[in-house]
Amino acid sequence: MYKKIKKRIFEIIESANGGDAASKLFDIVIISLIILNVIMVIAETFDISQNLISVMNFIEVISVVIFTIEYALRLWTADLLYPQYSAVKSRIKYIFSFMALIDLLSILPFYLPFIIPMDLRVLRTLKILRLFRVLKINRYTNALQTIAQVFKNKASQLILSMFVVLLLIIMASVLMFNVENAAQPDKFSNALETMWWAVATLTTVGYGDVYPITAAGKVLGTIIAFLGIGMVAVPTGIITAGFSEVIQNDKQKIETQNDEKHYCPYCGHKIDK
Amino acid sequence: MYKKIKKRIFEIIESANGGDAASKLFDIVIISLIILNVIMVIAETFDISQNLISVMNFIEVISVVIFTIEYALRLWTADLLYPQYSAVKSRIKYIFSFMALIDLLSILPFYLPFIIPMDLRVLRTLKILRLFRVLKINRYTNALQTIAQVFKNKASQLILSMFVVLLLIIMASVLMFNVENAAQPDKFSNALETMWWAVATLTTVGYGDVYPITAAGKVLGTIIAFLGIGMVAVPTGIITAGFSEVIQNDKQKIETQNDEKHYCPYCGHKIDK
Amino acid sequence: MYKKIKKRIFEIIESANGGDAASKLFDIVIISLIILNVIMVIAETFDISQNLISVMNFIEVISVVIFTIEYALRLWTADLLYPQYSAVKSRIKYIFSFMALIDLLSILPFYLPFIIPMDLRVLRTLKILRLFRVLKINRYTNALQTIAQVFKNKASQLILSMFVVLLLIIMASVLMFNVENAAQPDKFSNALETMWWAVATLTTVGYGDVYPITAAGKVLGTIIAFLGIGMVAVPTGIITAGFSEVIQNDKQKIETQNDEKHYCPYCGHKIDK
Amino acid sequence: MYKKIKKRIFEIIESANGGDAASKLFDIVIISLIILNVIMVIAETFDISQNLISVMNFIEVISVVIFTIEYALRLWTADLLYPQYSAVKSRIKYIFSFMALIDLLSILPFYLPFIIPMDLRVLRTLKILRLFRVLKINRYTNALQTIAQVFKNKASQLILSMFVVLLLIIMASVLMFNVENAAQPDKFSNALETMWWAVATLTTVGYGDVYPITAAGKVLGTIIAFLGIGMVAVPTGIITAGFSEVIQNDKQKIETQNDEKHYCPYCGHKIDK
Repeated sequence: MYKKIKKRIFEIIESANGGDAASKLFDIVIISLIILNVIMVIAETFDISQNLISVMNFIEVISVVIFTIEYALRLWTADLLYPQYSAVKSRIKYIFSFMALIDLLSILPFYLPFIIPMDLRVLRTLKILRLFRVLKINRYTNALQTIAQVFKNKASQLILSMFVVLLLIIMASVLMFNVENAAQPDKFSNALETMWWAVATLTTVGYGDVYPITAAGKVLGTIIAFLGIGMVAVPTGIITAGFSEVIQNDKQKIETQNDEKHYCPYCGHKIDK
Repeated sequence: MYKKIKKRIFEIIESANGGDAASKLFDIVIISLIILNVIMVIAETFDISQNLISVMNFIEVISVVIFTIEYALRLWTADLLYPQYSAVKSRIKYIFSFMALIDLLSILPFYLPFIIPMDLRVLRTLKILRLFRVLKINRYTNALQTIAQVFKNKASQLILSMFVVLLLIIMASVLMFNVENAAQPDKFSNALETMWWAVATLTTVGYGDVYPITAAGKVLGTIIAFLGIGMVAVPTGIITAGFSEVIQNDKQKIETQNDEKHYCPYCGHKIDK
Repeated sequence: MYKKIKKRIFEIIESANGGDAASKLFDIVIISLIILNVIMVIAETFDISQNLISVMNFIEVISVVIFTIEYALRLWTADLLYPQYSAVKSRIKYIFSFMALIDLLSILPFYLPFIIPMDLRVLRTLKILRLFRVLKINRYTNALQTIAQVFKNKASQLILSMFVVLLLIIMASVLMFNVENAAQPDKFSNALETMWWAVATLTTVGYGDVYPITAAGKVLGTIIAFLGIGMVAVPTGIITAGFSEVIQNDKQKIETQNDEKHYCPYCGHKIDK
Repeated sequence: MYKKIKKRIFEIIESANGGDAASKLFDIVIISLIILNVIMVIAETFDISQNLISVMNFIEVISVVIFTIEYALRLWTADLLYPQYSAVKSRIKYIFSFMALIDLLSILPFYLPFIIPMDLRVLRTLKILRLFRVLKINRYTNALQTIAQVFKNKASQLILSMFVVLLLIIMASVLMFNVENAAQPDKFSNALETMWWAVATLTTVGYGDVYPITAAGKVLGTIIAFLGIGMVAVPTGIITAGFSEVIQNDKQKIETQNDEKHYCPYCGHKIDK
């Protein structure tokens, strides 16, 4: 009986596939709550009336209660998720899984002041962790897993190219500081400030808050802009390529499952008819 | 006799291919009128003299009359466009086709005040629908169909990547609001306002109306810029790839029609389809 | 004798390949003169002393004399360039060739006031034609021919995608004008002015001289930015792809000439060892 | 005995691979010192207290001493690096190698005032050479070698496309100067100043410090923006492609070493090399 209930709950909290109405309802409740929380996080940045704050505090309490129950249920049924591990080991493994950490961190700021006496300012900063609730949506889409996959696949290439970009930013900033500091001591006040110019230029964002005004600075800026745009394009290109590959692979996997296969009878390559 | 006239009119209003002089003339009149209307829509945004307004109102009436006749004729001959449907069904199908809706909506604001009494302000807003006349050009080029095809082909990839971009924008905005609000309460006044910064940064437009000024804001801005540019490059890359593919396919289709033989693209062997 | 001299002159004025010292000297003189003229065109935009102006006028006269002689010689030897045509026809063909037109237009503003009495202002504007001397360098590099080739190869794709971009700019401008005109009547004063915003946004240049400030304007701006960047990326991508292809083809042609070929004995593909 | 010590030192100063503890320690000391020097170069651009300057001068002396010893040791063991050359020739070859020049130039500004009496301002400028110490990190990563490889592989393509970009910048600047100078004599004061606008526009950085305000200037700006972005995308694309190729090749090389079999990449047949 206990086992049966547990198995049923596990089925409900897992993403619904097929016609399980209870599981679908659970998903809808959680997703709605996540969206509501995202709206609230954005709404809180506005000057809002005391009444609305009360309403939002109430929703916050409800959210935390539901998310806490969700967390507890997921922890309880973790041994069904990892049937190959022991009761204790499966729970530990679950607690340190990415999604469970997100779940925990996103409700923690609510409980923390009850456990440890805290400075109000620290608490306010910690409340930003509630933003992690956005990431809970990850269970219902493979968007974030796709990104994680991309960064994993391309890690070595990304680190190599990012290192080059970093070298470029450091050298560009120190050189530009030496060239422009005399003319604009307030904007190119030190090499770190100048880095902000380098970032804005290399990413081609170009806010226009800092830019060289001396002839030497403009020449240096031109060289850095042309050199750098190519360099910055590399990690961008790697991420784009990685993303496309992962999406392509997923598509191919699905196609291979559904499709009658067409191969060239001579060389064995698959052919799009 | 009636049938013959109807068939002739159908031939004339359909895009001319070959030496049909009447059909070509009809196309030229409609295309000229469309271009004239585009110029008028742009011209109306200027401060223009009362005389010019009178001229333009006259052209507007002429345009609406011609476009209305065109619409009526197309509706009348719809059963020749969809010969597989019944007289009524073919007309209904035509009315709800994309191009017919464009045609209707682009002349509706002219007739609406005669049918329903309307507020002048609402009417002015509705007049923007005349801009849809630009899209009538669609019948004479496959540019817009190409775009529609691209978005259809790549829908799932685009939605996935757009979702990631949206998550990134939300998280970037809320984080940036918390970091910069104290220093620039007027520019980073709430998370929605900060989104405008996020959009300008992630698309690398960088107008320079809002940018972080605190050290923490600049560090966060740098991370978001680098992370985000890669992410935003993905939908851009998908659209670009999709566009190229469709153009490529069109080209290949034409080539395949001219060329009877089918080869394996990998090994060059001729294959019996 | 006459024929021998003519043939020798033709050899000299044609781009030197091999050890022809006279031809090389001629090339060096012309290239130096072109570079000198480019420097002069740039220098003239500065406030320069009367002495320097005298020097530059002297160089200008020398340049025109040499370029005129060059033009005359090329015209004289045109029948050796097009041996398949008659004496008259080869000259006419030469006069209307791209490079000969560049040559003529770049020296014409000097002679024009002697032929037709001209307004000084018109003459000043015509002097900008001297900038065409930059293009004379084209004879010594295949850079511009490469570009011309790219635009020729990709003409149909470019026209199609440019048409879409144009439609997008028109619709974005008229919509944005209606949204922002009330709030910023000086910056979004009419649809043409708003096009400047559209261009700056779609190309991601984002000077920051015009940008929406109303909420509706920012929402519309966000949609246009995301939609448009993808659209604008298409012609950019086409040009880039076209350029790479032409360079690749040139490379392959050279490689095929120099290389021992390595093929897979089974499928016949060339393999990089 | 002497030879043995020399060989041991050569092993230590060469990049550690495997379990050589002394070599690893040497690498860690040098890398730490490089990072410390980078921090110092950045720190010196700030207004720092006299105490900190003293500390930094002390670290500078230590750094120079260690880097000088490193340079001497590398020079001493250069005949082990190039065993095919004579004792003198191997040292000369080493001194003029890229990394040895970096090493020398990065410590030279410290010794120079002791050798030649120098103006303080010249010395300050020379101190920027210390920034080259950043490049010493090159020995411990293949990032910069990768870049050098990219520029070497793609040299001819890059020069060709850069030449086109240069032509475009010159022509755009002179034209834009003629169009905008009358309206904005302070910002478009001469063709060189206008080049700064051209660079900012073509790279899409768009700081917003200079932009056309006349109608003609905006039309010209639009044409240049669209034409130019495609042109500038070409060298960017070449660098990106080159970078990807080199990374790919490195990957393939590693894979080929681990994998004994050679297959045709097109048809999958095993090929006897």
